[in-house]
Amino acid sequence: MFERFTQGQALASLQKTALNLLSEKGEANARGIASKFIDQFKQLDKPEQLQFFEFLAKRFSPNPADVLKAAQLYADKNDDDSLIQLVKLVEPARQELFRRINRAPEGTQTIVRMRERLIEHTKSKPGFKAVDADMQHLLSSWFNPGFLELHEITWSSPALLLEKIIQHESVHAIDGWDDLRRRLQPDRRCYAFFHPQLPGEPLIFVEVALVGAIAKDVAPLLDKKSESLDAKKFKTAIFYSISNCQPGLRGVSLGNFLIKRVAEKILQEIPSVKTFCTLSPVPGLNAWINTLHATKGLEPIEDKKGKNAAALQLISPEDGAWQKRLAGGWTPAKAAADEQSALLRLCFIYLTQQVHTRAGDSVARFHLANGAKLHGINWAADLSKKGLTQSSAIMVNYLYELDAVEDNHEKFIKKSVVYTKSLERLS
Amino acid sequence: MFERFTQGQALASLQKTALNLLSEKGEANARGIASKFIDQFKQLDKPEQLQFFEFLAKRFSPNPADVLKAAQLYADKNDDDSLIQLVKLVEPARQELFRRINRAPEGTQTIVRMRERLIEHTKSKPGFKAVDADMQHLLSSWFNPGFLELHEITWSSPALLLEKIIQHESVHAIDGWDDLRRRLQPDRRCYAFFHPQLPGEPLIFVEVALVGAIAKDVAPLLDKKSESLDAKKFKTAIFYSISNCQPGLRGVSLGNFLIKRVAEKILQEIPSVKTFCTLSPVPGLNAWINTLHATKGLEPIEDKKGKNAAALQLISPEDGAWQKRLAGGWTPAKAAADEQSALLRLCFIYLTQQVHTRAGDSVARFHLANGAKLHGINWAADLSKKGLTQSSAIMVNYLYELDAVEDNHEKFIKKSVVYTKSLERLS
Amino acid sequence: MFERFTQGQALASLQKTALNLLSEKGEANARGIASKFIDQFKQLDKPEQLQFFEFLAKRFSPNPADVLKAAQLYADKNDDDSLIQLVKLVEPARQELFRRINRAPEGTQTIVRMRERLIEHTKSKPGFKAVDADMQHLLSSWFNPGFLELHEITWSSPALLLEKIIQHESVHAIDGWDDLRRRLQPDRRCYAFFHPQLPGEPLIFVEVALVGAIAKDVAPLLDKKSESLDAKKFKTAIFYSISNCQPGLRGVSLGNFLIKRVAEKILQEIPSVKTFCTLSPVPGLNAWINTLHATKGLEPIEDKKGKNAAALQLISPEDGAWQKRLAGGWTPAKAAADEQSALLRLCFIYLTQQVHTRAGDSVARFHLANGAKLHGINWAADLSKKGLTQSSAIMVNYLYELDAVEDNHEKFIKKSVVYTKSLERLS
Amino acid sequence: MFERFTQGQALASLQKTALNLLSEKGEANARGIASKFIDQFKQLDKPEQLQFFEFLAKRFSPNPADVLKAAQLYADKNDDDSLIQLVKLVEPARQELFRRINRAPEGTQTIVRMRERLIEHTKSKPGFKAVDADMQHLLSSWFNPGFLELHEITWSSPALLLEKIIQHESVHAIDGWDDLRRRLQPDRRCYAFFHPQLPGEPLIFVEVALVGAIAKDVAPLLDKKSESLDAKKFKTAIFYSISNCQPGLRGVSLGNFLIKRVAEKILQEIPSVKTFCTLSPVPGLNAWINTLHATKGLEPIEDKKGKNAAALQLISPEDGAWQKRLAGGWTPAKAAADEQSALLRLCFIYLTQQVHTRAGDSVARFHLANGAKLHGINWAADLSKKGLTQSSAIMVNYLYELDAVEDNHEKFIKKSVVYTKSLERLS
Repeated sequence: MFERFTQGQALASLQKTALNLLSEKGEANARGIASKFIDQFKQLDKPEQLQFFEFLAKRFSPNPADVLKAAQLYADKNDDDSLIQLVKLVEPARQELFRRINRAPEGTQTIVRMRERLIEHTKSKPGFKAVDADMQHLLSSWFNPGFLELHEITWSSPALLLEKIIQHESVHAIDGWDDLRRRLQPDRRCYAFFHPQLPGEPLIFVEVALVGAIAKDVAPLLDKKSESLDAKKFKTAIFYSISNCQPGLRGVSLGNFLIKRVAEKILQEIPSVKTFCTLSPVPGLNAWINTLHATKGLEPIEDKKGKNAAALQLISPEDGAWQKRLAGGWTPAKAAADEQSALLRLCFIYLTQQVHTRAGDSVARFHLANGAKLHGINWAADLSKKGLTQSSAIMVNYLYELDAVEDNHEKFIKKSVVYTKSLERLS
Repeated sequence: MFERFTQGQALASLQKTALNLLSEKGEANARGIASKFIDQFKQLDKPEQLQFFEFLAKRFSPNPADVLKAAQLYADKNDDDSLIQLVKLVEPARQELFRRINRAPEGTQTIVRMRERLIEHTKSKPGFKAVDADMQHLLSSWFNPGFLELHEITWSSPALLLEKIIQHESVHAIDGWDDLRRRLQPDRRCYAFFHPQLPGEPLIFVEVALVGAIAKDVAPLLDKKSESLDAKKFKTAIFYSISNCQPGLRGVSLGNFLIKRVAEKILQEIPSVKTFCTLSPVPGLNAWINTLHATKGLEPIEDKKGKNAAALQLISPEDGAWQKRLAGGWTPAKAAADEQSALLRLCFIYLTQQVHTRAGDSVARFHLANGAKLHGINWAADLSKKGLTQSSAIMVNYLYELDAVEDNHEKFIKKSVVYTKSLERLS
Repeated sequence: MFERFTQGQALASLQKTALNLLSEKGEANARGIASKFIDQFKQLDKPEQLQFFEFLAKRFSPNPADVLKAAQLYADKNDDDSLIQLVKLVEPARQELFRRINRAPEGTQTIVRMRERLIEHTKSKPGFKAVDADMQHLLSSWFNPGFLELHEITWSSPALLLEKIIQHESVHAIDGWDDLRRRLQPDRRCYAFFHPQLPGEPLIFVEVALVGAIAKDVAPLLDKKSESLDAKKFKTAIFYSISNCQPGLRGVSLGNFLIKRVAEKILQEIPSVKTFCTLSPVPGLNAWINTLHATKGLEPIEDKKGKNAAALQLISPEDGAWQKRLAGGWTPAKAAADEQSALLRLCFIYLTQQVHTRAGDSVARFHLANGAKLHGINWAADLSKKGLTQSSAIMVNYLYELDAVEDNHEKFIKKSVVYTKSLERLS
Repeated sequence: MFERFTQGQALASLQKTALNLLSEKGEANARGIASKFIDQFKQLDKPEQLQFFEFLAKRFSPNPADVLKAAQLYADKNDDDSLIQLVKLVEPARQELFRRINRAPEGTQTIVRMRERLIEHTKSKPGFKAVDADMQHLLSSWFNPGFLELHEITWSSPALLLEKIIQHESVHAIDGWDDLRRRLQPDRRCYAFFHPQLPGEPLIFVEVALVGAIAKDVAPLLDKKSESLDAKKFKTAIFYSISNCQPGLRGVSLGNFLIKRVAEKILQEIPSVKTFCTLSPVPGLNAWINTLHATKGLEPIEDKKGKNAAALQLISPEDGAWQKRLAGGWTPAKAAADEQSALLRLCFIYLTQQVHTRAGDSVARFHLANGAKLHGINWAADLSKKGLTQSSAIMVNYLYELDAVEDNHEKFIKKSVVYTKSLERLS
């Protein structure tokens, strides 16, 4: 359908179309130029895409001198007109470009895909970070939770959609259609956010197990052969997996809204369920332990009695020691009692005192920032290879108490982690 | 359901909720605080609403000193971080407030209603214009044509929706359900834009008559008793009415996109239709004529031969004279030939040379800026009282040639009006 | 699209198509011949339709000699084969013809329309009654309540559908769209049965008022200006109107199923509603009173004390006397106390003792056969001209007690009428 | 939910409910008794079901003496009343019972399931055949093609539905979800009939391959790894599999209507497709060959020149000989030229001259009776074990020429088989 351009031509054409789209012509033509832009962008190869992002970075940033003048005027006058003028001048023109691209069919999708490419390079290419900030700003506004639709994914959903769920599950991989079918039985739920402009495209989804008591071990939740629990016994909802499907929406808050919307929905539909809780991995634990000596990571948090240092000494007397033991076939079943309590202590320290640092655990940060409370640290909870390698088979429960979410979040922002009393025994 | 507050309390509560919503608590609580805001806003009486808008204006504008510093830094460094920081600082915090309000059910609707109230006062109250600019900016992004759904309104549409069409038609009032039914017969079409967040709420709609040749007279189009034209005879689509339904979306481009989307749709569905054209009122004509002497409005455009001045002399020898003749029962049927040609000349001058001025005709400005071409000026085209009073019964055709729309728009921006050759006889 | 046939040709062609459709060719061709039949039938004028029905009557009845033989064989053998053979032979071949017509699009609709024409003549034309019995038999099977869909009609229903409701309401005429809108407010409900094959075509609908106590007067229910009742006060559902939309479905049980389905639905959705009751006209009352002397209708039911005769004497000393008084402007307001009690007595007698006779009231017969109980006889309940003329403004409540419906129906079949104790005072 | 009855009680209760449902009580109670019946039937074990069918057979057949009297009356009078009376008397009362069961939710489904059980025993139990005839009669009327909905099954259909397709495919088994996905690519289509009362339950489905020329070999059609053909090359639609999903609808014509509806649909949607053809198995061929001597099946059709006998002599000199060779590993690749022509000749004879006999091929009978034409006999077309065992790997094309379908069907009824000229070379 499209002629293929010689080297450089495709890029030049796209740049011309972009300028056209931002011009008066672009204002008048509802969708034609935008559609052309989308078709042309699809034809770029990877290096050309990078060149186009550079063009976006250089050509559409605000003019510093103009901005400075407008800022001065606003400082002097502080009135409506000077503010409006300033706001207008400072917004990079590429934001309007993106809004105009969005007018065409497939526009939103193109912008999300474009950003997916861009963010692979934001760190290496000057100017890309600002372009990315503009895209994230726009996408956050467009994918505002008020515009998202929450749908349950069931075995009656289109196979085309279910296939995407299989493909994007990133916590506990789905092993084919039979595994998926089990995860959609009455005692398992799956919910996803969708955007009206991307029908059939899940943005993010969460998998929930309806159980009796809080799960401390992931194996029963994932057992393909297990029977569905009798609905009368549903008391607790375990969020056991949450996966993003759109890399182009990185940094756009979706997960925290999803968990709360799903909790509210379950609360309404299954009144017997009173507890909402995760069973989560601790992906950063072992890596942290294995470098504690070098980073002197334990020092600032050392307790008076030296118990932390003793625990570290037992587990990993020098950096990398623990890694070696794991490689040598360590399993929880082989662990001595003092080893178990040392590891649990280190995990507790890691989650409560390191989460605000660079080495902090990403999953912990997500749930704690989201207003959850650290509720349980479970021994021998994930015996898969991944579980052993990441966190010595430890998994964690984060508890969502809907009434406490605001306060917990606020405390977390103030660098404090809320945890269940009984965990103090680990410290 | 809601307790009623004593004087001042409702406002104070709402302000507190607004601050809360923008705080960390608001970040964590997906929808609870936003819902509270919406409920509380509904309880304000009109004076309290004004006070709340003042609060929005004062409390959430960017700090001039901070802005100046950031602008200076950007001028000095001109790098990603300084730009990102500047953009962030300059955006008034109320934009984020609105985005958070939007998270709750009915959020979008509330913001649209809020702006409907606000714009009644933007001229009189300092600060309101900037608040309005923020709202318009956000709403333009959210009501981006890419997010709008085009639906045909038919006699099979819900009565609840049809009732809104009756209520909002503002060009040629719909006289009850029988009139509406006629306007939804096969030779009449009605299309509206909807937003997924406001289901069942038309944003803007256009009424189209499918006819043989370009209509020069509105009466047959509106005749309730007329028979529907045989579909084989459809050659021309006349846009005979376009009405906005949401005052809160003023300034958000909808009409121009609607007309072009509808034209494309008809082109696709009814290939025999090749011509797209309006039959439009000239609401400003008589008012312009009646003040030409005082404003010396004719001077800059006087022709060499003095024909314009002669025409004015004939029609309105002094300001207000024409108004008096109309009041005295003038009708096109009673007009002499030279009177007719003088009026048509003045109308042509008005539309082609005055449209960029303050006195210019709003309907002409809409269609010409939109890329249409002035195509016909029709004598005795609207004999209703409104038609006589506004424009001496003259109506105008604006022609939409889809291929020429971009160029016409560009010329219009450069202060030139494109018109059909044959109209030169009027000058 | 269709050529018009000369006299007689259209009928001949249709007859040929009908025979073709019943032949082996018709068996093989899924829909073609049936579609042809439908097109050809539409072209018949009224006399030709009658001729076609005669053809159906004569050509497709079972052969008496064959039937007799098969009956004899069945009597002799009494086995599967003889029974199957008999059943096959006795079924008139036109039933298979109708089933084959039904294969084409619009087939069901055509058969319903066909019967609508036919039943205008069943009494006058020999053979038509048997054809009609076949059609009714088939339609009863196809419009089995298990195949019907119950939908609520609301102000959000398509105008096209609402228009049909306005048109078919036959008890209390709907006076335009404003009247309809009132009847669809939250304290009024409207439900209809639909068939999947006739989408958008209501078969029968019932209008319900949700009120506090049982209504004894129809005016407040029909008051267009009334406010909708607060939902908290809903205690009783009054079925105040039930209308058939499809004359071609006469004799197919729909109304009784509709009332019970609606009662069950309301019971489920609005638990505060405990009472289900009609407010019904008594269309046959005055006509009965006015001919009692001639038909000696009172004799068999005369009571020992002669109270009935006395009542009749007071109201209508000779046949037609009551009619004259009504014509002369009688109203309940002008009635003396003994007149009132005489009329109520006659009405009670009429409903309880005449309902199984030919003179019995059709509305009473419908509800009583349907398992309702006579619950109230209301004075001055319908002051409209129709109400005065039919029943001297009296209206009746039939009470639906879902648990008692089966027993009441059974008693009614055994010629006994169940009524509320307190009505005995009227006798 | 349901109490379990002691032996015999469940049956007795169900019989009582059945009688109740047919009584006046059943007439009045819209759905209650029918629902009870359905619940009770579900509780029966297999022997009890049989006892219930016996009850249906004995209790609800027409009374022979009454029938005979009515038949006599009809023979004497031959008028509407006697005919109506006769028809009523002859219809077994269980038909009305089934119609009343159908009033309840799940009614239709229950009757279909009930028949599924019944037909396993129709041959062995006296009376069952007549009950079955009644059920088939009713179901044929209810599943009239006019009431069926044709839906395309795609990869966007619910997984729950696709799972049923996998399960019910009975010609070429679907080997898991990947195989299914290939069969739903753009060059493959799948269509099914549904009934409004059984949503989500396919009744019958057909799989279609869109190809260039008529397929003579099934392997490429079933190749999971094949690429989808370019839509521009679609010229021929191959019906390569048709499967019934509802054993309870045996004998209800569905397949013939399905094929023609699908052909019409494809004709409309893909105008480049002009040829509609099957690639079908010949399930009865080898069995026929292997018993020809014993049944003397070749005798009546022996040709003058003895070519048929010679062919048989070559392939299977005595009954069972061919079977042995197949068991010994015969494949088409190993066949000599005269063996190939002998087998093709026997197949041609079998299909054209045996199809009306008891030994005739069921697939051939279906398509030929359905108006298709025998078009191709393909050597080495199905090399699967099933293909070899059934038909020595031969497959057949039946051609659907929509214009010729009626005539072909008629000829078939008159015992003649229509085949493409070029096949004569096989005889």
